[in-house]
Amino acid sequence: MEVFFAKHPIVADIHTHVETQCYSAIQEKFNPESVPLKDMLKYHLGFDSKSSTKKGKRIRPLLVCLATHLAGGSWQNALPAAVSIELIHNFSLIHDDIQDQSLTRHDRDTLWLKYGSAQAINAGDALFSLALHEIWKLIKSYPTDVVSKCSQILTTTCLKLTEGQYLDIDFEDRTNVTPEEYQFMIEGKTTALIAASTRIGALLGSSDKNTIENFELFGTNLGLAFQIIDDYLGIWGDSARLGKSTSSDLVSGKMTYPVVLAIKQNQDFAKRYKAGKIGTEEIPSILHMLEQTGIAEKTKSKADDYTSKAITYLHSAAGNHPDSQVLMDLTHWLLKREI
Amino acid sequence: MEVFFAKHPIVADIHTHVETQCYSAIQEKFNPESVPLKDMLKYHLGFDSKSSTKKGKRIRPLLVCLATHLAGGSWQNALPAAVSIELIHNFSLIHDDIQDQSLTRHDRDTLWLKYGSAQAINAGDALFSLALHEIWKLIKSYPTDVVSKCSQILTTTCLKLTEGQYLDIDFEDRTNVTPEEYQFMIEGKTTALIAASTRIGALLGSSDKNTIENFELFGTNLGLAFQIIDDYLGIWGDSARLGKSTSSDLVSGKMTYPVVLAIKQNQDFAKRYKAGKIGTEEIPSILHMLEQTGIAEKTKSKADDYTSKAITYLHSAAGNHPDSQVLMDLTHWLLKREI
Repeated sequence: MEVFFAKHPIVADIHTHVETQCYSAIQEKFNPESVPLKDMLKYHLGFDSKSSTKKGKRIRPLLVCLATHLAGGSWQNALPAAVSIELIHNFSLIHDDIQDQSLTRHDRDTLWLKYGSAQAINAGDALFSLALHEIWKLIKSYPTDVVSKCSQILTTTCLKLTEGQYLDIDFEDRTNVTPEEYQFMIEGKTTALIAASTRIGALLGSSDKNTIENFELFGTNLGLAFQIIDDYLGIWGDSARLGKSTSSDLVSGKMTYPVVLAIKQNQDFAKRYKAGKIGTEEIPSILHMLEQTGIAEKTKSKADDYTSKAITYLHSAAGNHPDSQVLMDLTHWLLKREI
Repeated sequence: MEVFFAKHPIVADIHTHVETQCYSAIQEKFNPESVPLKDMLKYHLGFDSKSSTKKGKRIRPLLVCLATHLAGGSWQNALPAAVSIELIHNFSLIHDDIQDQSLTRHDRDTLWLKYGSAQAINAGDALFSLALHEIWKLIKSYPTDVVSKCSQILTTTCLKLTEGQYLDIDFEDRTNVTPEEYQFMIEGKTTALIAASTRIGALLGSSDKNTIENFELFGTNLGLAFQIIDDYLGIWGDSARLGKSTSSDLVSGKMTYPVVLAIKQNQDFAKRYKAGKIGTEEIPSILHMLEQTGIAEKTKSKADDYTSKAITYLHSAAGNHPDSQVLMDLTHWLLKREI
């Protein structure tokens, strides 16, 4: 990320403003009686630490502001939307960690592990409320109907997030997930908020319908490509493939695109998968099974399709803008991981 | 409730419309892949049952619509706000039940007990998103700036709810809660959404600032009176006082207004309370302790103060409207429980 900041000063500038305004959004709210609740939110967002490893990368607010800038608007004016989306993302992470009983997030204890599930559920709700309130700060620079539109996109997106999350939890107890169900799940859980980032960003920079739609489709395909690449690396990434650790999605039993594809297209794999947990020692034979039906190639090809679609839509949306290379570089950086 | 419907047909009429539109709000959303999530929300709201004991009383939406009507507007137009507030109330109940690990709600298993905590947290989030989206249906009948105002009141209210909830959970491990902290907690947890109901209702019926403020203050005092009466009955209500069951708030260790007042004003009680759980057999001696510092009278007097303020504000807000008796009767019905 730091290299990227050096190459594109606008990215470093946006990042600094997002950090400051995310902090202010939390800091200026809450009464003296509920300061510890505020402190929980600061902890989750990493504001009690100077270390960048304790914080998220703030990709979504960067997408909002760059979309506004490349659509022809002032990214400074769009900051409340960027903050709102980052807070929504973090609300969903707080609840995710409780649902998955995850112990670590950004290199330290998850919020529920530190404060208990009851307070962590409530802190997530507080962050959600704060996020949806924050969007109204746009009113300083935009007419009411534009802010209203953003507010409605956010609530629709949050509903999609919960639909994706419902399936993601549901998949944990199932071995018969179809590629179509998997697609619906990632469209909600991973892609919806990324597409909302580029869509809202664009509509804060332009009123041209085509531009807004192209930015949204760029976000959708970027999110899908990112997820499928993640899924590929979960099986064929270095540590996963060599079976040196239990980081393989095959061992953890996670439902991912190659897994649901193999369940559908490879009877041997489906039979083995449904029989119970896969051990690290089985990885070579399972990889051989997947090779027979070309699952790695099909996954790679799916990721490539989404990547090229993302780039095409980005070209259509912002190809003529002198700074379009910034978002092009960010896209390549996000999707660069070799597969 | 049924007697009340018979006396005031408008109340029965509002109730029917609220039920239908709450159902539609859930029914029309959700994709085929996430139907079971929709079914969870229907279960929580009692839509899978014909029995009224399986449902809430829908008091808040009734307050919204009656406030609109008495402020001079059409309650039918205000229905999306009524639905939105009822869904917010229910989102908070779903999360409350997980936080408290409560087993029963409306005469049957709580949502988390039936579906697990992970899915129930997510269902609460879905209902929250749906509620904040629903408010935008007001746009059919109101200008954008009025709907925007309602949306902002809702998100501010939800933030207050989480501040109150933070303290309520925090109180469970504390024996040094002050009356001021307790007041702040109930203002968030109990009162904020009731005050938002009467405020939003009023502003959907009138643009007069005084009327809207009086309706809001009516709601605030109604909520506070309701809570303090509940607290009184938790110690001096029939079943609690006679010690026939463990329903006394003294035995459950719940922080309520008389308890925090007694901790502050009665050293013997404070000492005993801090020493550990109170048994049913101790109730007579503890009640005697509370009598010495007049805690019952002080609690009753606090409830009476709020009740009379609520009625005064209601008179100021709607005294001249030919139907004002409907809301007066509802207020008396809510606060009628003998103390």
